[in-house]
Amino acid sequence: MKKLLRLNMADRSFSLEAVPEAYKHMGGRWLTSTIVHDEVDPQCHPLGPNNKLVFSPGIVTGTAAPTSSRISVGGKSPLTGGIKEANAGSGFPPALAALGIQGIVVEGQPTEEAWWMVHLSWDEDEGQLKVEFMPADEYAGRDLYDVFPEMFDRFGKVNLAGIGVAGEFLYANSGIVFDDLEGRPARYAGRGGLGAVMGSKRLKFIVVDRKGAPGVELADKELFDQGRKKLTDALMEHAITKPKGALNSYGTAVLINILNEAGGLPTRNFSNGRFEGAAKIAGEAVFEGNKERLGKELYNHACSPGCIIRCSNTWHNEDGSELVSCQEYESIWSLGANCGIDSLDVTGKLIKLCNGYGLDTIEAGCTLAVAMEGGLAEFGDGEAAINLMHEIGKGSPLGRILGAGTATTAKVLGVKRVPVVKGQSMPAYEPRAVKGIGIVYATSTMGADHTSGYTICPEILGVSGKVDQFDRDKAELARNFLEATGYIDSTGHCLFIAFAILDIASGFEGTVEECNGVLGTDWTMDDVNRIGKDILDKEVAFNRAAGISKADDRIPEFMKIEPLPPHNVVWDVPEETLQAVFP
Amino acid sequence: MKKLLRLNMADRSFSLEAVPEAYKHMGGRWLTSTIVHDEVDPQCHPLGPNNKLVFSPGIVTGTAAPTSSRISVGGKSPLTGGIKEANAGSGFPPALAALGIQGIVVEGQPTEEAWWMVHLSWDEDEGQLKVEFMPADEYAGRDLYDVFPEMFDRFGKVNLAGIGVAGEFLYANSGIVFDDLEGRPARYAGRGGLGAVMGSKRLKFIVVDRKGAPGVELADKELFDQGRKKLTDALMEHAITKPKGALNSYGTAVLINILNEAGGLPTRNFSNGRFEGAAKIAGEAVFEGNKERLGKELYNHACSPGCIIRCSNTWHNEDGSELVSCQEYESIWSLGANCGIDSLDVTGKLIKLCNGYGLDTIEAGCTLAVAMEGGLAEFGDGEAAINLMHEIGKGSPLGRILGAGTATTAKVLGVKRVPVVKGQSMPAYEPRAVKGIGIVYATSTMGADHTSGYTICPEILGVSGKVDQFDRDKAELARNFLEATGYIDSTGHCLFIAFAILDIASGFEGTVEECNGVLGTDWTMDDVNRIGKDILDKEVAFNRAAGISKADDRIPEFMKIEPLPPHNVVWDVPEETLQAVFP
Repeated sequence: MKKLLRLNMADRSFSLEAVPEAYKHMGGRWLTSTIVHDEVDPQCHPLGPNNKLVFSPGIVTGTAAPTSSRISVGGKSPLTGGIKEANAGSGFPPALAALGIQGIVVEGQPTEEAWWMVHLSWDEDEGQLKVEFMPADEYAGRDLYDVFPEMFDRFGKVNLAGIGVAGEFLYANSGIVFDDLEGRPARYAGRGGLGAVMGSKRLKFIVVDRKGAPGVELADKELFDQGRKKLTDALMEHAITKPKGALNSYGTAVLINILNEAGGLPTRNFSNGRFEGAAKIAGEAVFEGNKERLGKELYNHACSPGCIIRCSNTWHNEDGSELVSCQEYESIWSLGANCGIDSLDVTGKLIKLCNGYGLDTIEAGCTLAVAMEGGLAEFGDGEAAINLMHEIGKGSPLGRILGAGTATTAKVLGVKRVPVVKGQSMPAYEPRAVKGIGIVYATSTMGADHTSGYTICPEILGVSGKVDQFDRDKAELARNFLEATGYIDSTGHCLFIAFAILDIASGFEGTVEECNGVLGTDWTMDDVNRIGKDILDKEVAFNRAAGISKADDRIPEFMKIEPLPPHNVVWDVPEETLQAVFP
Repeated sequence: MKKLLRLNMADRSFSLEAVPEAYKHMGGRWLTSTIVHDEVDPQCHPLGPNNKLVFSPGIVTGTAAPTSSRISVGGKSPLTGGIKEANAGSGFPPALAALGIQGIVVEGQPTEEAWWMVHLSWDEDEGQLKVEFMPADEYAGRDLYDVFPEMFDRFGKVNLAGIGVAGEFLYANSGIVFDDLEGRPARYAGRGGLGAVMGSKRLKFIVVDRKGAPGVELADKELFDQGRKKLTDALMEHAITKPKGALNSYGTAVLINILNEAGGLPTRNFSNGRFEGAAKIAGEAVFEGNKERLGKELYNHACSPGCIIRCSNTWHNEDGSELVSCQEYESIWSLGANCGIDSLDVTGKLIKLCNGYGLDTIEAGCTLAVAMEGGLAEFGDGEAAINLMHEIGKGSPLGRILGAGTATTAKVLGVKRVPVVKGQSMPAYEPRAVKGIGIVYATSTMGADHTSGYTICPEILGVSGKVDQFDRDKAELARNFLEATGYIDSTGHCLFIAFAILDIASGFEGTVEECNGVLGTDWTMDDVNRIGKDILDKEVAFNRAAGISKADDRIPEFMKIEPLPPHNVVWDVPEETLQAVFP
């Protein structure tokens, strides 16, 4: 019953196809990476007519499965030159699933300059999907915080996927934005420059109106409910994911103090593993700061429908008005500690600029830090950082440099400390101090990416056992996490369910039962690794054909030769270990 | 007797070593690529302390062998990320050879900002090389046309190797400059950004004073003279290389009309193979223009001591004063036809700016064309091109983008027509219209590089036979040229001897006899390919370990999908042909 919707932007035509038999159980990353592998020439220009942009909600997205409203977006990355999957939580994915859409494949590109949007709705009279292309020039060149309200005024209760000026400018740092539960442009499939791919196709927005849509069918409701309950119980029980637990109280930024203590919080462009201002920008400081400014305790909220972890926060001005949502760990770190900035008001403003322009906060923060190292500003100078961010939004020559991301900025400025793998900036865990995540950065098909294999669980958090952060013999650990993550990214669940299901086996089983309940399959836990491996095999094959070789599975040289305080460790994982991840 | 001089820029120390047995017959590219292969970590940052910059005069450089005053410079390229050899003709190489230096290896880098130079001379009292480090801050940040005369004023009759502001700014487009016979900063080992490597080591100049130096010893003077005579005869006889022949009369720009006629002259950023203004910027126009402005015929001059081809020209203002030397084919094309510019006065000014700033003209012209396509100027607007070039010299944000080269400029501006291979700009031959040179571009260890295998000889010029320019079955042709070129680049001869020696077998034999005469070896013609293959094997091995895979042996996608006028041909050489070059 589910369909693949193909949008041809060259002539604004579409086709609605039955999902091919081989794809029928696929969702999320499994489907996006499979279609990119099967249909995109690995040697195409990422911004040319032969790249494709694929959207797919997860397998259980749109059901009552907890914390499952995520969508994967895939294509060839303008940032890495390899395959890319980035995912986000929003009301958009379940709305798409409710319309019976398993995937959207955006193809071709117009030769004209005009911007377009696509409006998807359910034609209740015809009992079928309605697809309309509409001009979108009026929304281009503007801050998404101004544009989103206009879209809701015009279209009512809809969900949005789109790009900001970063995608319009074809920046290699440009994400795809989705609306959060309050209609903010604040949920991003941020990494890898997929916003530029959407921009190259002159597609500004996809608007989804789910009114009257049939919703997601279940093949075995009883089995599904059984799985859903097991997962829900696990999430409600685990200290990290339960209500008023770590994530719900302090958000992802609860990690700031933890990583700082571990000496693994990259500071001032990865020149230190500990930041003296960490406590001021930690999750606890967000909680306490809000309490002081609001006069009451504020627990976090869900970023997307049906999330019971509820880790998304808001940050408030001194007068109690909202400054921004959300101050995530990665964003606070990249725009804060990594730039030597210890003010949540500054990180909040920078995050809001990223959201409004359509930028990935990790890439943006790493870029600012490299720009600071290159002499464009002093570390710690928040005002200068804000000014540089404005240049990105303006598209000035300087802004275009920064918009092209960390690796390009370093090349242009002649900076040698460049914390990237395969052209993508490293997230907030220092490979020298936490070796397993470094192995993941080096070998991930995505470039440096903590979400492709979150070994921080055992290395730092004691989730799924505890291993020494400095232990180097972690090829198998990395592979297991890489594979399991491929599966989770395909279910539509947020990766954060991993905290609970790695410790509580019944929760993990529950996710498989949910999938079986939706699909009518009889997967077991063995299928988790089968699916993960299938995804990785396709992604690696794409990358190899694109010119990304095993020799690109590397950590940058400066980490091998510059000891990282406070532990004064270098990156010393042997080459053979990296090669053993994908033997 | 010959020595390797190692300069450690970290502490400005040096060591003079006996040449290792394994290297004793090596010169030029053979030695630079061998040392880079043996000593440089392929995964090092090209601008970091672990890259090395290697200079080596050719095997017969410094002898009476005709047209042999060339030097190779090698290292890991900031432009391609792979191994690089670029070579130039100048008085510098024979001076170095006369001092008994087979190679200079520049290592390490200081942590301080100061600029240094190294002065090499012969201590006649001690009978040995004298090496002095001197401060060079006073020469930094300035136009090389101002700096070179000061250097000669200060040091007398010396030869220079150095960098301009491009190398100081660590631009990926930055060459290494050598003095021509008139002391101009006009002879460049231009390609691949080796100027930035020199800049990263804070080495502004190497000054060589050959006064009193012992000169190059010959193992067998009779054999050497026999070879030298054979080669000389061939060069004096061949229509392309003889006095008042094609090169001596019209310079390399004699090719403009020829390639234009063949539909293979890339025009307006590789969007056409024919330029309507070609005749105005052709070698014949240089000759006629000079004749008109000087009131007499002007034949070309030698760029370096002992050259009997003498293809270097000057271009004169309307009042007869010199505007620039030299208007090479590649430079006129890149800064002219490829930018839609049909004025030799404009190309002359742009070339002079490149020389004064220390830029590779091919990379600079391709970058300007991409910038024009990206909207920064109109094609054909010479004044705008000059202004953009000034930005490069100033190091403004815009200038830094352009200084980073074509691929980075395209990435920053979101331009999709990017004529590069492995990050290096294509020279003046359109792969769609001349398939063999496209195979060379795709497979060369250097990135797009006509000098690594000049198949234009048979494909366009009828030298060494004639093959159809559109024939696609040229893997073997490409390999033969790639290998033979490795050998020629090692002898110290200019590649232009190829025109003669490919047609006149005794001339080719003569080069082998010259080498045997210098080295005391008993090489035969079989050794030509052995040496070429050894060089290529080492270069490929370095590139593979650096992350450049076989999948990077490619022509950019736009050439596969955009037919090139006037023949309306696409790049259609099968993948298997590219793979067959290095099987």
